[in-house]
Amino acid sequence: MPEVIEPRSGVAFRLAKGQRLTVIDPQGEQVSDMLAFAQDDTREVISSGRSLDYASKLFLSTGDPLYSNRSNIMLRIVHDDVGRHDFLLTPCSKDTFRIIYGDEAPHRGCFGNLAEALAPFGIEPDQIPVAFNIFMNVEIDGSTGALTVAPPKSRAGDRIVFEAEMDLIVGLTACSALQSNNYAFKPIHYQVEDAPSATNR
Amino acid sequence: MPEVIEPRSGVAFRLAKGQRLTVIDPQGEQVSDMLAFAQDDTREVISSGRSLDYASKLFLSTGDPLYSNRSNIMLRIVHDDVGRHDFLLTPCSKDTFRIIYGDEAPHRGCFGNLAEALAPFGIEPDQIPVAFNIFMNVEIDGSTGALTVAPPKSRAGDRIVFEAEMDLIVGLTACSALQSNNYAFKPIHYQVEDAPSATNR
Repeated sequence: MPEVIEPRSGVAFRLAKGQRLTVIDPQGEQVSDMLAFAQDDTREVISSGRSLDYASKLFLSTGDPLYSNRSNIMLRIVHDDVGRHDFLLTPCSKDTFRIIYGDEAPHRGCFGNLAEALAPFGIEPDQIPVAFNIFMNVEIDGSTGALTVAPPKSRAGDRIVFEAEMDLIVGLTACSALQSNNYAFKPIHYQVEDAPSATNR
Repeated sequence: MPEVIEPRSGVAFRLAKGQRLTVIDPQGEQVSDMLAFAQDDTREVISSGRSLDYASKLFLSTGDPLYSNRSNIMLRIVHDDVGRHDFLLTPCSKDTFRIIYGDEAPHRGCFGNLAEALAPFGIEPDQIPVAFNIFMNVEIDGSTGALTVAPPKSRAGDRIVFEAEMDLIVGLTACSALQSNNYAFKPIHYQVEDAPSATNR
């Protein structure tokens, strides 16, 4: 049975080298922000800038590695039902809701949820970078550069699977931003498993 | 007279709130990677993810603010001759040249130049995020997400001017990557001045 991340909340957990993380959108059109830090030294963190540069593309999918700020591969996407995720934007936060939505008493967002979940691992809020925003669908106009947050392309039961290439601390949310989730907050499911090959070692 | 950043090198300096930083491409087609950290607490750093999210666009120009990871405005673009800069990619590095170009004895790149220039301010290499890559021209295919590094649109003498909205430590380079600079390494010029209004206070 998968673990459940309740709507507008987040978790953090260890993921060992060789283990696989499956992230499932159980109802469809729900984003999950993912962060990764090296267990050995949490100053090593997932890097959109390195990953997009080395891939020479914005949309990462099956086979693509996610690099750290030290240019080491942290995770690799080994299965992807959706093929459209965002790696441009930071997790939604109180400030996002204040600046973009004009909320006067804003929710703490994925940023606040990740900060709380990662604190027991000694990770500070300032260390939270651009997340790999699973299932987030940001449409891009290549000529003007305009960004439009559109409904996710994920349908009920769609999943993405990552294999860890180093020992990691992973942060994962059920995203809290209205626009990113087609205006409905839903849960996210996830599972951690040993890689298939590990059973034959 | 402007300060000169020699080809494939970098500098760091303090920029006080209200001061203006002018970055000039003296020969044309030369990129300059820029970083900013808060003087009061260098854990507060320029954030592509926040800036692009709040602007809802990839290409920032005159009038647009550059935000920190704490969602404070660090700098604002007050003049821009070129209108095309990159805010997606991390500074070029030994790893960039190894992974993308296959170099066996790679140059330390903007990353190494920035790390050395920022060290006297107590800033560690791991704190270097996605830079605001002045004059860097990354073409984007909005449908496939493909990124192509094209020659900068800057011509000899073109400039961009930033006004600081907080006390900053700024890192600035003459970029070291062949492709980014149309295969020729050139200097970058810069000037720091008090804002025009400051003389009337």
